[in-house]
Amino acid sequence: MSSTPAIHIGPHESARLVAAVERGGGEVVALADAEAVVVDGGHGELPQLPSSVRWVQLPAAGIESWVSSGVLDTSRTWTSAAGAYSRAVAEGAVALLLAGVRGIGVAARRTSWDTAALDGAQSTLHGATVAIVGAGGIGRAVIPALTGLGAQVLAVTRRGLAVEGAARTLPADRVDEAFAAADHVVLAAPATTQTRALVGAEQLEALGGQGWLVNVARGSLVDTDALVAALERSTIAGAALDVTDPEPLPDGHPLWTQPRCIITPHCTNPTALRSAAYAQRVQENVRRFAAGEDLLGRVDLQAGY
Amino acid sequence: MSSTPAIHIGPHESARLVAAVERGGGEVVALADAEAVVVDGGHGELPQLPSSVRWVQLPAAGIESWVSSGVLDTSRTWTSAAGAYSRAVAEGAVALLLAGVRGIGVAARRTSWDTAALDGAQSTLHGATVAIVGAGGIGRAVIPALTGLGAQVLAVTRRGLAVEGAARTLPADRVDEAFAAADHVVLAAPATTQTRALVGAEQLEALGGQGWLVNVARGSLVDTDALVAALERSTIAGAALDVTDPEPLPDGHPLWTQPRCIITPHCTNPTALRSAAYAQRVQENVRRFAAGEDLLGRVDLQAGY
Repeated sequence: MSSTPAIHIGPHESARLVAAVERGGGEVVALADAEAVVVDGGHGELPQLPSSVRWVQLPAAGIESWVSSGVLDTSRTWTSAAGAYSRAVAEGAVALLLAGVRGIGVAARRTSWDTAALDGAQSTLHGATVAIVGAGGIGRAVIPALTGLGAQVLAVTRRGLAVEGAARTLPADRVDEAFAAADHVVLAAPATTQTRALVGAEQLEALGGQGWLVNVARGSLVDTDALVAALERSTIAGAALDVTDPEPLPDGHPLWTQPRCIITPHCTNPTALRSAAYAQRVQENVRRFAAGEDLLGRVDLQAGY
Repeated sequence: MSSTPAIHIGPHESARLVAAVERGGGEVVALADAEAVVVDGGHGELPQLPSSVRWVQLPAAGIESWVSSGVLDTSRTWTSAAGAYSRAVAEGAVALLLAGVRGIGVAARRTSWDTAALDGAQSTLHGATVAIVGAGGIGRAVIPALTGLGAQVLAVTRRGLAVEGAARTLPADRVDEAFAAADHVVLAAPATTQTRALVGAEQLEALGGQGWLVNVARGSLVDTDALVAALERSTIAGAALDVTDPEPLPDGHPLWTQPRCIITPHCTNPTALRSAAYAQRVQENVRRFAAGEDLLGRVDLQAGY
């Protein structure tokens, strides 16, 4: 049995979120009358919540800023947008990998017709093995796109348990084997002390001269100096990076002018896609709230995520 | 029951094709001893064939040059490589579309970190409708990759019959409806008098400001002046072209400097992928020849293809 929950949207109230709340079966109300709050905008801050508020939806997948500002209390349920943005980032990862493998990065910089220049700059994902380091929401969302292109996926996860759609999984302590076994590597693992500089000279050497490295995780996973050296020596075929170390990458950095390096400035989850995905998550969680079902992205207050 | 067919490879005999013939169950022999000839290299020319040659495998998908040089006689079976290269071109089409939609073309030209410049330059294929004009080998090979990315496919074929994996099919005489109904359009139709300048100002207007046009077919399908005007006025989001009209596109042509135009110089079927695909086709047809099965790509000598 569903009720019509009273939902406040703030500090910013967009027409898209109003529509999402209503499509989910809720009614948009003032804060004082709210059973639940859908947060949009703000960075770690929240207004004083009346005790009637039993649930708060936060707009980010990583909610460190709200955790550190101390607003998460145990008197209500908190949900993050964890997982809601995976699809957009995964698509960005596939776009970067394909652009690399098929020479689009090289082509985009040319202003003259030269078929020969592109002819040798290409390989294919069909029949290739792509390692995905980190099979969380993003890594798992990459898999169907890659298999649709005829690639095989080698997943690397913390414990090495089977991942749907992956031909094989390795545990994190054997990640180096993935660089030797795979044709290309996509980094989608969280930034931790374990993953810091996970990719250095040795791993790039193992990846080899036909291999592309894609990073949509965090710049800290890659030793940038080792990557520059590998690109200069053609140790690998190329790198397609949404994240770098340092970030922003300063003007004049050698990566900007490497012909086989594609850089998107930390933008695989752009505003338009993010707000559409958030609205979809809000609609679904309002529906679940109304129906008394488990909410998506429920925050573990002890763990802080 | 299989025999061991005697196959000649010429005029160029590569180690890869020798291996392919042998894996297919054949034996490589001199022309005088051959039952069949696998052609590699040459453009429309052939040596004098002994009467013992019952089958000739040609290396191209379009065999106009051999037809016009008059070497195709009715005393033996001729096969083209039709369909063998579809996968490589289809992957190139998906790479171009994704590079457009996800802003990779814009990003590849930058040498400075500017997240805002990329933020508004992106949309997604997830949930989008992509029209594929021409569902031959290439068009059909594009479909699983697009559906793997969460797109829906609207196919346009000559007669409008159902296409596997496409949500809907339109007949060629209703192609204009596809530009209105689809978010993006991929051209993969043959160059004929019917498809000449199929895409003009009206179709680009119907495609709309969020839409990308991809052309991996022939430059003549698009009215280039109309395309330049549409890009200048942002009538469409962008164009990703492997083929142009004229071709090669001359230096200084306005398409080279349009920020939302990606050009690959007629290279979605590069040498490395082409020779691997041809070897695979040769292996399969040698196996079929040995087993007395129907050959792939059999040429209709009356029709000339």
